[in-house]
Amino acid sequence: MNKEINIGIIGLGTVGSSVVKVLKKNSKLITARTGLEIKIKKASDIRNRKDLVGSAFTYRAVDVINDPDISIVVECMGGVNPAKSYILAAISKGKNIVTSNKEVIAKHGREILSAAKKKGVEVLFEAAVCGGIPILHAIRECLAGNSISEISGIVNGTTNYILTKMTKDNMGFAQALKQAQKLGFAEADPKMDIDGSDAAYKAAILGLVLSGCLVDPSKIYKEGIEGIEPADIDYAKSIGYVIKLLAIVKLESNRIELRVHPTLIEKDHPLAQVNDNYNAVFVKSDAFGRGMFYGKGAGGLPTASAVISDIIETGQQIAYCDEDRYYPPMTDLTVKDIGDIRSRYYIRLEVPDKPGVLAGISGAFAGKKVSIENVVQRESKGGVAQIVIILHENREKNIRSALKAISRLSVVKKIRSVIRVGVN
Amino acid sequence: MNKEINIGIIGLGTVGSSVVKVLKKNSKLITARTGLEIKIKKASDIRNRKDLVGSAFTYRAVDVINDPDISIVVECMGGVNPAKSYILAAISKGKNIVTSNKEVIAKHGREILSAAKKKGVEVLFEAAVCGGIPILHAIRECLAGNSISEISGIVNGTTNYILTKMTKDNMGFAQALKQAQKLGFAEADPKMDIDGSDAAYKAAILGLVLSGCLVDPSKIYKEGIEGIEPADIDYAKSIGYVIKLLAIVKLESNRIELRVHPTLIEKDHPLAQVNDNYNAVFVKSDAFGRGMFYGKGAGGLPTASAVISDIIETGQQIAYCDEDRYYPPMTDLTVKDIGDIRSRYYIRLEVPDKPGVLAGISGAFAGKKVSIENVVQRESKGGVAQIVIILHENREKNIRSALKAISRLSVVKKIRSVIRVGVN
Repeated sequence: MNKEINIGIIGLGTVGSSVVKVLKKNSKLITARTGLEIKIKKASDIRNRKDLVGSAFTYRAVDVINDPDISIVVECMGGVNPAKSYILAAISKGKNIVTSNKEVIAKHGREILSAAKKKGVEVLFEAAVCGGIPILHAIRECLAGNSISEISGIVNGTTNYILTKMTKDNMGFAQALKQAQKLGFAEADPKMDIDGSDAAYKAAILGLVLSGCLVDPSKIYKEGIEGIEPADIDYAKSIGYVIKLLAIVKLESNRIELRVHPTLIEKDHPLAQVNDNYNAVFVKSDAFGRGMFYGKGAGGLPTASAVISDIIETGQQIAYCDEDRYYPPMTDLTVKDIGDIRSRYYIRLEVPDKPGVLAGISGAFAGKKVSIENVVQRESKGGVAQIVIILHENREKNIRSALKAISRLSVVKKIRSVIRVGVN
Repeated sequence: MNKEINIGIIGLGTVGSSVVKVLKKNSKLITARTGLEIKIKKASDIRNRKDLVGSAFTYRAVDVINDPDISIVVECMGGVNPAKSYILAAISKGKNIVTSNKEVIAKHGREILSAAKKKGVEVLFEAAVCGGIPILHAIRECLAGNSISEISGIVNGTTNYILTKMTKDNMGFAQALKQAQKLGFAEADPKMDIDGSDAAYKAAILGLVLSGCLVDPSKIYKEGIEGIEPADIDYAKSIGYVIKLLAIVKLESNRIELRVHPTLIEKDHPLAQVNDNYNAVFVKSDAFGRGMFYGKGAGGLPTASAVISDIIETGQQIAYCDEDRYYPPMTDLTVKDIGDIRSRYYIRLEVPDKPGVLAGISGAFAGKKVSIENVVQRESKGGVAQIVIILHENREKNIRSALKAISRLSVVKKIRSVIRVGVN
């Protein structure tokens, strides 16, 4: 028997509306995986969003907070006021809280978590740090057996986008910022991102989850990226480094180190490869060792992914005790035949070094409706040349049949390699 | 009040002994985080390991299985026989199971999970795929709200090490394999790794967790890396690709696609940067988007990290119901002053283009006991040169005091940039 979980949402902006959409789109799948039926009982916003949630809509957050059927209140407003008072009011009514609000947790997490503990409810905030990347979950649960000594994260997509453009496209800071704004990766007023304030909120929350100690974000040392000059990016590159804005959290026995600043990172380090508006968090611990969690750190859908994961976690705590767990059903699926898969392909052929070879091969591919993306004839040795061909995406059985035809061509000595190309 | 969870371990080889060691080392920390006191009540191996677990040691796995106080049996033997019969026997006694055994889950997961469901117990096997990387946890919980369309993973450290050496150090296959064996990254008989069998087990398990459908690993299409020639690696490189062995799982509505084979990956793709014996799993889903989980896929400690995470998850299910949850305590830590942090530094100075400048600057650093790792004098324009200096790791307050001295030197026009260097 599935269990119904009634939730209420406060705030139907980018994040809140994405939560609604993903819950709707994937509701069957979520129920099959978890045994939970998540119902949006009420959802509030200052703008009319009946189009989104129908009769569940209300203008008044207090309707969400006071609804006795709602067990989880999902706060997606952002900012401290009135989000903080709504969260505390909901806790006082015995509601569990899921929030995407980094500012309210970074500044008032201590008060909020204490109130929740007193009341015996849960407060989860995975979405507050790096959007969809489950880094808080990883620290709290997946690495729960580890002593974690250090967390270094690219936790702000705006600054990472700007630094990427400065590094890869030789843009200046101002030009890169303008482009970030045009693409919606930076706010009209980008100060909080640029100067490291946003990253400091996230550092505070990472520190909280790592150590139980919440440091006032205004006490966290921070430098932004305003001062990074193209010359520094060039010099760094010339000695094998890239520049990234990092939030760093380190734990000693009774001290915590928190800082946000641009950092030169060796170009082979996994963090050095995190580009555009992606985020990633690098973790160093005694058992797991060095690990990294990579993904989209902002945006409605990635943030909704984290919010819903927290809703499900809380819902499962509400629904299941030990004697009553949920087992997702086993399914039976057809296994797709390898001939039916689609891929691009890399082909290397040994051919005699004489005219007309390429025409024959191209013709054979064309005859099987396999189209060529790129072809290069490589060095010739003792009358034998290498042809390297990249094929456009096609069904594997077509490729195999084309290769069979090609292997019979007099202009082909040997098919040396067939390797699939590409990951989405 | 903390809750005691009694566990039993079957198999004290590399993984089992690492589980014991990490549980001992981090026991206080685990209890603080989770409220659980995890006790190793019994642990069995065919070799005497009293040195490791004292009076909990037994030669007989059946002693672990039959102990009425044990609620979680941790199976770390590997292989199908006798691991499978031990797991089924433990389930029949009502024990929860945590296992690191990919082969037994890939081949007999259906039978094992059905038995567990009938008995109302849990079977977790995070460690069976990519060691310490919490990829199963991520799929099951962190991305539970997502429709996941594709998983592509570098899931075998041996082959990734060999391909890395072939790519970066221009080794041939045989030489790279020999080095992998020398460093313990490959078995004496490396067949199961090289031919993709190991990766196929992991593909089967990833498919199971993604879809509920467990495909017999012998039915999974696979190609190994035996046929990869240095020429292919070179040609791939010349057109912007690297070659990696991937396990790929894709879901359609009622079909599953599973395959293991070498793949050309664009050099800017996050998976292309995963080198040496590291693993990584790339996930594509509708809400989270493109994400990647990176870390050590094998070895005692990383695998123990995953085993312990599963023990804790099961322990929490046993210990806590909704009305009785555990709140990790809030702590108070001293925030480390930025002057006390240690880092390497990148310094860029504007100096007059004349002799003696470098001597003056070096002297000033030396006077504050700050030592220089690397210094390059850069182009001169209008009598002004740029000096870029990398400093060895030092305490920030020493660097600041050295920079103060340097700013007063007549041979320094301006300190243009000071950026910290490095991530561990």
